[in-house]
Amino acid sequence: MSVKGNEKPFPLKLLVKKLDLVADRPLIVLNNSDIEKLELDPDESVILSVKNRNIRVSVLATKSLVKEGEVGLCGNIEEQFGLSEGSKVILTKTAGFNSIRCIKKKMDGQTLTRGEIKEIVLDVINGNLTNLEIAGFLLGVKYVGMTVQEVEYLTRAMVETGVKISFDKATYDKHSIGGVPGNKVSLLIVPIIAASGLLIPKTSSRAITSPSGTADTMSVLAEVEFEPDEFKEIALKVGGAIVWGGKLGLAPADDIFIREVERPLSIDPESQMIASIMAKKVAAGIKNMVLDLPMGKGAKLERREEALKLAGKFVELGRRLKINIVCGLTYGGQPVGYAVGPALEAREALETLMGKGPTSLIEKSVSLAGLLLEMSGQARRGYGRNMAYSILKSGRALKKMKEIIEGQGGNPDVKPSDIPIGEHKAVLYAKMDGYVKRVENSKVVAIARKAGAPRDKGAGVQLYAKEGRKIRKGQPLLEIYSERSSKLTGAYELALQFPPISLEGMLLDVYPKFIE
Amino acid sequence: MSVKGNEKPFPLKLLVKKLDLVADRPLIVLNNSDIEKLELDPDESVILSVKNRNIRVSVLATKSLVKEGEVGLCGNIEEQFGLSEGSKVILTKTAGFNSIRCIKKKMDGQTLTRGEIKEIVLDVINGNLTNLEIAGFLLGVKYVGMTVQEVEYLTRAMVETGVKISFDKATYDKHSIGGVPGNKVSLLIVPIIAASGLLIPKTSSRAITSPSGTADTMSVLAEVEFEPDEFKEIALKVGGAIVWGGKLGLAPADDIFIREVERPLSIDPESQMIASIMAKKVAAGIKNMVLDLPMGKGAKLERREEALKLAGKFVELGRRLKINIVCGLTYGGQPVGYAVGPALEAREALETLMGKGPTSLIEKSVSLAGLLLEMSGQARRGYGRNMAYSILKSGRALKKMKEIIEGQGGNPDVKPSDIPIGEHKAVLYAKMDGYVKRVENSKVVAIARKAGAPRDKGAGVQLYAKEGRKIRKGQPLLEIYSERSSKLTGAYELALQFPPISLEGMLLDVYPKFIE
Repeated sequence: MSVKGNEKPFPLKLLVKKLDLVADRPLIVLNNSDIEKLELDPDESVILSVKNRNIRVSVLATKSLVKEGEVGLCGNIEEQFGLSEGSKVILTKTAGFNSIRCIKKKMDGQTLTRGEIKEIVLDVINGNLTNLEIAGFLLGVKYVGMTVQEVEYLTRAMVETGVKISFDKATYDKHSIGGVPGNKVSLLIVPIIAASGLLIPKTSSRAITSPSGTADTMSVLAEVEFEPDEFKEIALKVGGAIVWGGKLGLAPADDIFIREVERPLSIDPESQMIASIMAKKVAAGIKNMVLDLPMGKGAKLERREEALKLAGKFVELGRRLKINIVCGLTYGGQPVGYAVGPALEAREALETLMGKGPTSLIEKSVSLAGLLLEMSGQARRGYGRNMAYSILKSGRALKKMKEIIEGQGGNPDVKPSDIPIGEHKAVLYAKMDGYVKRVENSKVVAIARKAGAPRDKGAGVQLYAKEGRKIRKGQPLLEIYSERSSKLTGAYELALQFPPISLEGMLLDVYPKFIE
Repeated sequence: MSVKGNEKPFPLKLLVKKLDLVADRPLIVLNNSDIEKLELDPDESVILSVKNRNIRVSVLATKSLVKEGEVGLCGNIEEQFGLSEGSKVILTKTAGFNSIRCIKKKMDGQTLTRGEIKEIVLDVINGNLTNLEIAGFLLGVKYVGMTVQEVEYLTRAMVETGVKISFDKATYDKHSIGGVPGNKVSLLIVPIIAASGLLIPKTSSRAITSPSGTADTMSVLAEVEFEPDEFKEIALKVGGAIVWGGKLGLAPADDIFIREVERPLSIDPESQMIASIMAKKVAAGIKNMVLDLPMGKGAKLERREEALKLAGKFVELGRRLKINIVCGLTYGGQPVGYAVGPALEAREALETLMGKGPTSLIEKSVSLAGLLLEMSGQARRGYGRNMAYSILKSGRALKKMKEIIEGQGGNPDVKPSDIPIGEHKAVLYAKMDGYVKRVENSKVVAIARKAGAPRDKGAGVQLYAKEGRKIRKGQPLLEIYSERSSKLTGAYELALQFPPISLEGMLLDVYPKFIE
């Protein structure tokens, strides 16, 4: 990477000029004469500073759009820094950040020190690294790996560079490493645990590669974006909350890793995945957590051994970071429940809280909730699941969920049928009698995303059959919902090309084969 | 990466509007209404097509800079596609290229088929992949590696997607994997071989991470940018040529790999490095080649075993691609000769051709040239070096070099002293009497680049001492040249901080130590 080692920065004071130009990433427009002053190479980016905040921006050159001494801003830099026409900003040449050497070191297969990891995270936060350089780091981490020690340092660095929340009483949480569509269990577990009297201030993420993250699903029922104190207040008042972690500013470096590299390349390097989860929890002041590790064909974890190995890493990291962790290995070979996509999942979660929901969803929810009840001592070992189940069945969980929804500014009396879903629909039918052999996570995910999820809340997939279920020819297998006809078309074609549900008759094969 | 699987492209015809906006990468400005028509997500790029050529571009949104139905172009798309105000272009949504799945496959550790590799290379050429996606591929190649079979496919794909040159007579070439500063041997070897009557049409590269590539150094003496026929004509007329491969359009995918990812991340994955070299040679119609593998501390190859292993791969690939290859392992533990940087190296090469040059440069040049003479049968085994040496000493090589320079539009009578070098200078002096223990390649490179090389042709480092040389305190060790005082300052400070030349006295240590 840039060998501009320790070049003297060469600052330039400029006045902001409003430009009618919007970009998806930080971009500025400079007059040629200022570019000459900065001795910028064609592909060189610069650091824009306002007070003590920096951001690395690409440069567009112009002769007339902005005059010498002016800078035009795109990519909502204005909002981010609260700038307006005439505000002063400072431009400096990138100083060839030392973090770049640290990234190179990891790419070269070496172990990083606490200081080196901190430098990388700081430069990520300060916008000093290009997404290409961040990709170098994360792919280095993916292929070279990290020691538990390094993961701890990365976690601490991400926590230290963000907002920290703390509660005076014991806190409980549930988190999943994801990878299974339809996994809306948090919308059941949080109210169950809160109803039991424990404090469960859940911060969750939006979907990275899935059709709906917990935050996406919850956003259908209530607000999920809160300032740290609002979040804390709601959680303490109601006993539970389900908000989007992104708005709280917890471990912001993690959000940048995800946005700039992990989502576009759809990679999720294990070490960073672990650090990401732990950092958010440490920053949110969580002390006890049940970790859901979905396992099975098409899940992130296919074999029990790798699941247990990963569980061991989480528990060890929890020990180092003072979080009491219990991992639950759950069945992740097919979607949880029947609904996939924000609105559809919110509907299914609500129906289940109201008493009529699919067994897979209920069982997974009460089992994991049960582990939390046992960790807290509320239930004796082995009795947590039943206690959770009775809290759900008694309607206390539903009552608590209404409080949470109200606390987060939603309508507590919302009915499942009130929740709007995409008006464009297409149904996939069984081509034969038989039994459902397999429901493939990856295909269900691809179809739901192509239908518009998670961006379009009403988009998704409603399954009508799960594995083992007997099906008659012509019966519906699944229904696709979309908010845009063009997206429905794409999703439907994808479903026809790669059917997510495979059937087989009772007669599996014939031997000897007939000669044809 | 994008799960937009097989979404229907949604083409939009637009008229080019001239915009006073210059970017370093392909960028267009669209009116919000057209962005809505294309259903573009904020971070989504689109394919711009003119006739049958495509390029993937990022999008800036505006309300007023361009009207509905218009498109503003930045990043010399105009020149590239020969467009002007009012020309018609077509925009289509990216169709979720299959190559992205192939890249993912390599990142996941799998072996790619010929077809998959071809798809990746085609989409790179067509501008369908982001630099982040290309980085995913190259880092996958770096860490996962490639089989010889895959490297052959990659080489062929890069050749097939570019210009091919062929000669009716036997062709000879010399190439180096690089990594050693001051390696201007091609400027001696080409004229020596051409003077011997063999055809040596050398295409060379500009510096990627070094202070001067052969093309950079040659560009000081003559033109190096030619169209394929011009290049062929010059080579056939004079018997030799030294031009920049980049202008010829040979294996253009390789140029994109280097520009978009390898240079910015300063990585050089072995498989791609091999494919890159071989593709350029196959495309240039080379049939016989001597490959220089510099070996030693601070060179790309530190141990003989790895050098021999790499040599084996090149020879095997040469066999598959019908190029007769002989590898020469050379000493690369310190710079070749004393001059580092385009102008300084051109001076030294010229002086050496004129009869007064450093031994290391002369010996390396005639040894490698000798191997070519032996391959051609002009010299018997073991006599090539002496034949090359006499061609050099007789002045025939100089005479031939003048013809080459003239053939490439340069001044054949140029004197070393005519070559302009940076007017800003700084000298580093010895702080003690002693012997030069080490001259570190990486530090010499960093200093020369910070001084401005290779961009500033006059910038670089002139060494006054090589390993083993006796030095008195106060004698100059090296001199830094720069075209800009600001760059000289940076380079000088770097040299003081990381002295590239280390001395030691005759008394190396004392035992037992005195107690202090």
